[in-house]
Amino acid sequence: MATGAGTDPATRLREYLGPLEDLRGIASLLSFDQETVMPAAGHATRGRQEATLTRLMHEGMTAPVLTDLLDELDAAGADGDDAALAREVRREADKARRVPAELVEALTLAGSAGQEAWVKAREADDFAAFLPFLERNVALAREYAACFDVAEPYDALLDDYEPGMLTADVRDVFAQLRAEMPDLVGAAAERSAPALEGPFPIDAQRRAVDVLLARIGFDEESWLLGIAAHPFSSSPGRGDNRITTRYSEESLESLLSCLHEFGHGLYEAQIDPALDRTPLGHGASMALHESQSRLWEVFVGMSLPFWRGVWPELCECFGGLPGGVDLEPFVAGLNRVAPTLIRVDSDPVSYPLHIVLRFDLEQALVTGDLAVTDLPGAWRDGMRDLLGIEVPTDRLGVLQDVHWSFGAFGYFPTYALGTILAAQIWAVARDEIADVDGQMEAGNLAPLRAWLAEKVHRHGKRMEPGELIRDVTGRGLDAGPYLEFARGRAEGRLGG
Amino acid sequence: MATGAGTDPATRLREYLGPLEDLRGIASLLSFDQETVMPAAGHATRGRQEATLTRLMHEGMTAPVLTDLLDELDAAGADGDDAALAREVRREADKARRVPAELVEALTLAGSAGQEAWVKAREADDFAAFLPFLERNVALAREYAACFDVAEPYDALLDDYEPGMLTADVRDVFAQLRAEMPDLVGAAAERSAPALEGPFPIDAQRRAVDVLLARIGFDEESWLLGIAAHPFSSSPGRGDNRITTRYSEESLESLLSCLHEFGHGLYEAQIDPALDRTPLGHGASMALHESQSRLWEVFVGMSLPFWRGVWPELCECFGGLPGGVDLEPFVAGLNRVAPTLIRVDSDPVSYPLHIVLRFDLEQALVTGDLAVTDLPGAWRDGMRDLLGIEVPTDRLGVLQDVHWSFGAFGYFPTYALGTILAAQIWAVARDEIADVDGQMEAGNLAPLRAWLAEKVHRHGKRMEPGELIRDVTGRGLDAGPYLEFARGRAEGRLGG
Repeated sequence: MATGAGTDPATRLREYLGPLEDLRGIASLLSFDQETVMPAAGHATRGRQEATLTRLMHEGMTAPVLTDLLDELDAAGADGDDAALAREVRREADKARRVPAELVEALTLAGSAGQEAWVKAREADDFAAFLPFLERNVALAREYAACFDVAEPYDALLDDYEPGMLTADVRDVFAQLRAEMPDLVGAAAERSAPALEGPFPIDAQRRAVDVLLARIGFDEESWLLGIAAHPFSSSPGRGDNRITTRYSEESLESLLSCLHEFGHGLYEAQIDPALDRTPLGHGASMALHESQSRLWEVFVGMSLPFWRGVWPELCECFGGLPGGVDLEPFVAGLNRVAPTLIRVDSDPVSYPLHIVLRFDLEQALVTGDLAVTDLPGAWRDGMRDLLGIEVPTDRLGVLQDVHWSFGAFGYFPTYALGTILAAQIWAVARDEIADVDGQMEAGNLAPLRAWLAEKVHRHGKRMEPGELIRDVTGRGLDAGPYLEFARGRAEGRLGG
Repeated sequence: MATGAGTDPATRLREYLGPLEDLRGIASLLSFDQETVMPAAGHATRGRQEATLTRLMHEGMTAPVLTDLLDELDAAGADGDDAALAREVRREADKARRVPAELVEALTLAGSAGQEAWVKAREADDFAAFLPFLERNVALAREYAACFDVAEPYDALLDDYEPGMLTADVRDVFAQLRAEMPDLVGAAAERSAPALEGPFPIDAQRRAVDVLLARIGFDEESWLLGIAAHPFSSSPGRGDNRITTRYSEESLESLLSCLHEFGHGLYEAQIDPALDRTPLGHGASMALHESQSRLWEVFVGMSLPFWRGVWPELCECFGGLPGGVDLEPFVAGLNRVAPTLIRVDSDPVSYPLHIVLRFDLEQALVTGDLAVTDLPGAWRDGMRDLLGIEVPTDRLGVLQDVHWSFGAFGYFPTYALGTILAAQIWAVARDEIADVDGQMEAGNLAPLRAWLAEKVHRHGKRMEPGELIRDVTGRGLDAGPYLEFARGRAEGRLGG
C-alpha cells in the first residue's frame, strides 16, 4: 500500500490504511453475497477468494512500513482522532504480527472447509462427520491462542471480539446469571402468555417488515434487505447498509429479527464519517454491537408503546388482527418466555443461559479439559442443568450453531454481554430522552436514533470498549439492569 | 503475492497468479452486486473499493518478480498450457507495465464518476451535464493509448477487448456492413411480421424464463439469475455463474435476454478446470464471448425448432397462447426487423449498423477529429445516414449507452464482430452436429453445449482469438455467413 511522501504522518497513515479498509468492506460484501444468493457450487472458489483477502489484509497490518508510520506519528505527537487511530492500529498490528501468515491461511481454509462440513453434518444429524473438522478448528484455535502472552488461552480468543475483556471478567458476570437465571426462567415461563398462533402468511410478513423498517429509519437509498437462512447484518461501507431476515409461516420471528439486524446496521451507519476508511470506523466491540441490536429487538421491539404506534398499519398488512389477537395479547405473545432447544429461537430471558453453556464448553475445549468427541454429551448435560431441557438429537443440540464450524471460539459470550449492555444502555436512554414511550407510540424513533448516535454510535472505536461503556452508562459492565428486566418477566410484568 | 521456492517455475507462476485471479473474480462479483442490489448511496464507497482492487491487480501484473518468473519459465522451456500461460501473461504484463499506476487509478475513478454522472444526465436528458465527464474520459483514453506503440491510437483501445485485432481489420469488415446492410434492413423491415402485442404479465415471464433456462442447461446448484436494469453476465469463479435479465410488461425481451446471457455464462462455465485461477481461464476475447451469447439468443432462441420444443410449457406459463398468437406467428414476431433508436432494443439485422456508428464516432473522438461537444449532432447525422432514423432527444440518442461513461472505448466493435462470428460458428455447428433442429425440437440442447465446449469453450485463452476462430471455422473473421443470414431476412426467410 503506497505512502505518499511530503505529507504529515497522520495523513500518510490514513492513506496506508484506506485500501486495507476497502478490502475489509469487500470481505464483508463477500459474506453477504455468500449467505444470501451465491450458488452452492461456488463455495470452494469463494473460500479461496476470502483467503486471499484475509492474507492481503494480514500482510498490510504486519508490514514494517506500518510500524514505521506509527513510530513517526508517535514521535510527532498525535492527539484526538489521530492518537486513537494510532492506539487502535498498533493494537491490531501487534496482534496480527504475532500470528504467522501460514496460520492465518490455515485458519481461513479450515474455517471454510469446516463450515461446509457442518452444513452437511447438521442436515444429516451426524456429529461424527463433523468431528474431524471441529478437532482441526480446536487445534488451530489453541495454536492461535499460543501466539499470545495471556493468563489463559481463552483470553486470546475473547480479545478478538471483545478487546480488553478478560475471561475472568466474563466468568464473574456469568456467575451471577448462573446463580439467578434458572429460577427466573422457570418463574417467567410459568406466568408467560400463550404463544402467537400461525400460520402467518409470508406476503403479510413481508409487508409488515417493510412497515416496521420504514418506521424505524430504514431507507432504500442506503439500506438493503436480503433473505438468509441465518439472519445477519453487513456493512460493506458508507452508504451501503445491509440486513437480512427470514420468513416462516410458523412464527413472526421475521419481525423481531429485522429489528435486531437494523440495530447492528444503524450502529455502523451512524459512525462519524470522519472515521471512514480507518479501523476506527467500526463498532467498538461485538458486545457493544450486540447491545445495539438487542436494544432495538428487545427494548423497542417487544414493548407495548412501539406496537401500539404501528398497530393499525400492522393489521392492514395482515388484513386483520395478526395471529387473530388484539394488541395486548399480541405483545404478550411476542414476550413469551419458554426454554427452547435452539438458541436463536429463545426468548431474551432464557437466552443468556444458552451462552453460559457455550462459554463453559469452549473454554474446556481450548484448555483440553474436554475432548471434542465428548462434546455432544457435555452439551446434553449442560442443557439439562441450566435450562432443564433434554436434548433429543445433536442436530437440535451441539450442531445447531455455525460459529465453531468456522473456528470462531470466544465469540459467544459477546451475545449475552450484549443483552446485558442493552439493558444498561436502555435504562440510561429512558432517563435522558424525554418521553421515550410516547415517542415510540407516535412512531417517532428519531430521538432514540439521535441519542444513540450521540452517545454510542458516532464514536466508533475512538474509545476502548470498557471506556465507552463507562462513558455511556456511568459505570462498568453491570448485570443489574438485565437481572431487573428478567425479574420483571418472572413477576409477569412487561416493559424494559 | 508469495512465490514458493523449490518448485518448478510453472508451478510458481501459477501460485503467483492465483491470488490475482481471486481479485479478478472478486471484482466481477462487485460489479454484479452493484448492478443488481447495491443501495444507490453506496456508489462512492464501491468506487474506492474497485479502485483498490484494480490497483492491486495492476501492481501484481507489473511486479518485477513476475517478469523474473516468466524469464525463468522461458529459460526452462515451457510447452502446452504452460507455454500458452507464459505467452498470455507476458502480453498482459507488458501492457500493464506501459500504463503508470496513477493513470490506472485516474481511469478507474473517472469511470466511476462518469457512470454516476451519466445515470443522472440520461435521466434528465441533459448531455451538457455529462459533457465534462465524457471529455475527461476521452482525454484519459488518449493518454492511455499514448502509452502504446501502435499504428493508430484506437488500436490500443481495441486490443484491450479484442487482442491482436487491428482497427484496420474492423474497418474492412464494417465496410461490407456499411455497403450492404442499410438496404437489407429496409427490405427485411418491409417483409417483417407484426410485433408481438402485450401486455405480457411479469409473473408469466418469470415462469417462462425458468422454463427456458432449465431447458438450455441452467441449474441452481451453480447458476444464479438476478434482475438488472441492463442485463449482463458475470463469472466470479468456478461454480459461480451469474446472469441477469429484466422484465417489462410491454415486451418479451426477458426471454431472449436470458438466452443471450446464458451464452456468455456457459462459455466461462465450460472452460477446462485445469485453467482455473490463471489468466487462461476466461473467454478468448470479447467478440468470441459475444459470439456465444448471440448464438444462443439469435440462432437458437429465434428458431422455430427451439420454440416448437418448448411451446406447450410456454403456453402453460402464460395460461394460454403467449401474446395471443400461435407458434409460427410467435416466432415470426420474435424475428421482427424494424430499425430502432435504441441499440439494445434492436433486431439482429439492424443491430450491426448501431455499432458501425459507434465505431466511427469513438475513433473520431480519440483522434480528436470530433470534439465531444459536437458528438450529439454527429450521432443524429449517423443515425439518419445508416438507419434512416431521426433522433428526437439525446436520451434516446447519444446518452443511451453506459460504455463511454466509464471510459470503455474500443468495446463496441466486439458486439457486431460477435454477431458475425456467431453466424460463422453456427454454420459449422449445423454441419457437425447431427440433426440440430431435431435435437432442439426434442428439447435436447446437450449436444450443442458439448460441441461448443469441445470446439470453443474448453480452450479458454489457450489460443489467441484469431487462431481460435481459424481453428473452429477453418478460416478467419468472415462477414459472409452473417450477410447470408441478413439476406434471408430481407427475403422473408427465417432460420439461421
